[in-house]
Amino acid sequence: MSPLAFAKGHGTENDFVVIRDRQNMVPPTPELVRQICDRRTGVGADGILRAVKAQYIPEWQGDPDVWFMDYWNNDGSIAEMCGNGLRVFVRYLIEEDLVPRMEAAIGTRAGLRTVWEQPSGALRAEMGSAVVGQQTWVGVGDRRFDATSVNVGNPHVVVILPSDVALNDLDLQQAPSIDQQCMPQGANAEFVHITGPNQFTMRVFERGVGETRSCGTGVVAAAAAVRNATATSDVFNVQVPGGRLRVEFSGGQAYLTGPAIIVARGNLTLPD
Amino acid sequence: MSPLAFAKGHGTENDFVVIRDRQNMVPPTPELVRQICDRRTGVGADGILRAVKAQYIPEWQGDPDVWFMDYWNNDGSIAEMCGNGLRVFVRYLIEEDLVPRMEAAIGTRAGLRTVWEQPSGALRAEMGSAVVGQQTWVGVGDRRFDATSVNVGNPHVVVILPSDVALNDLDLQQAPSIDQQCMPQGANAEFVHITGPNQFTMRVFERGVGETRSCGTGVVAAAAAVRNATATSDVFNVQVPGGRLRVEFSGGQAYLTGPAIIVARGNLTLPD
Repeated sequence: MSPLAFAKGHGTENDFVVIRDRQNMVPPTPELVRQICDRRTGVGADGILRAVKAQYIPEWQGDPDVWFMDYWNNDGSIAEMCGNGLRVFVRYLIEEDLVPRMEAAIGTRAGLRTVWEQPSGALRAEMGSAVVGQQTWVGVGDRRFDATSVNVGNPHVVVILPSDVALNDLDLQQAPSIDQQCMPQGANAEFVHITGPNQFTMRVFERGVGETRSCGTGVVAAAAAVRNATATSDVFNVQVPGGRLRVEFSGGQAYLTGPAIIVARGNLTLPD
Repeated sequence: MSPLAFAKGHGTENDFVVIRDRQNMVPPTPELVRQICDRRTGVGADGILRAVKAQYIPEWQGDPDVWFMDYWNNDGSIAEMCGNGLRVFVRYLIEEDLVPRMEAAIGTRAGLRTVWEQPSGALRAEMGSAVVGQQTWVGVGDRRFDATSVNVGNPHVVVILPSDVALNDLDLQQAPSIDQQCMPQGANAEFVHITGPNQFTMRVFERGVGETRSCGTGVVAAAAAVRNATATSDVFNVQVPGGRLRVEFSGGQAYLTGPAIIVARGNLTLPD
């Protein structure tokens, strides 16, 4: 195979390789995804975002002129949507002059998503709805916490920590235990320490991955649970290990605002 | 700052960012090295290899026309030499037509090193001398093993495992304990399982880093200790977690042969 143009970028330390493939000429195999994402033998990333014109995606039913985000996890599986990935994807398209800076509509497996560049340079992205579900529990070590289930396209359980537990003292080396009856497919788990009327700090354990520096849908789920519990605000500033994000709720939708940076671009040498 | 041309490559999964800076115009700060090597917010690598013409390196006393390998660890410290890095460096120079494929002389902080491309495509590199020193010990968990100290420019202690201990059963999550009297500056520790008259499998714990996929000087040190103990051969095939290498001893010098691959090249976007 010949060289493939790529860019590498990150949003709150969730990092991606973007590959531009306008006409859907090089749909990757899971093996190629794993190889590109390998942090030692490849470029290294949490996932791949392939930029394809939506008209070349057979299952896409919407506007054929938008760019479609073909998102793969670094284990070679396909994923629907990723909040941090969406911003990195749009940052790439903006820098390549492929979408307007002010407002870009992007096709994803979860549907059409609009992204706006803010005056600060941060990107604000439509995240769909966050549906607060039933009360449940999450276990960490020998302690069990009350939790709220939230669906943001994918399932989450959110723990608002009691005041006697410090966020940094939680041992997330092991997967938290989750109520299998409430969450038969498992869930991502968010742990929140409220620091003010419209702000909180959180950590996230991603299902099948482990603790990560940031998770876009997890931040939205946590904000939805905090809003549901405290009814203080429709806007939240959120500190995750990888940086700062902002969540707004408006008209039944969640919006996630945060940074996205392209740090390198070039060509991949693919195996023969 | 403007974009900086780079390549990313690896040798037995020891990975490096190569930066071409012929006239020594952009000597990196430790902070920039750490940023480029960050696996999420940068390109990600074990270290940086900057290619500078030796005439621009004030402390270089030798041939001004060779390329000098300015090697930095990903923690921002400067290092003398790295066997896997040297092959990646020469692979890059070969692919850029900057050195002859058959034989390249490279300036390093440890002196001039010659590298040859083999008919197989592997690169064979001069590694200097490997000096076997006194007998010592290395502790892993509650077990203490006999070991041999070896100096390959940097200090090593090599354990040839007794037959009742399986290489994969060693717990190298914690640093092995080392005789501080014998090795006041600490040492890299290699653990060897001999699999034939001229072959062995090994694992390595690098001082200040942890267990790694490969360590060029560690492979040479281990081969020197095995040769000293068994007197079976001057050539050894060595399996490390990241791949296969070959060590030869000839005329008081060690030579290390192995793969080196460039997987991507492009431009870095440096911070403003």
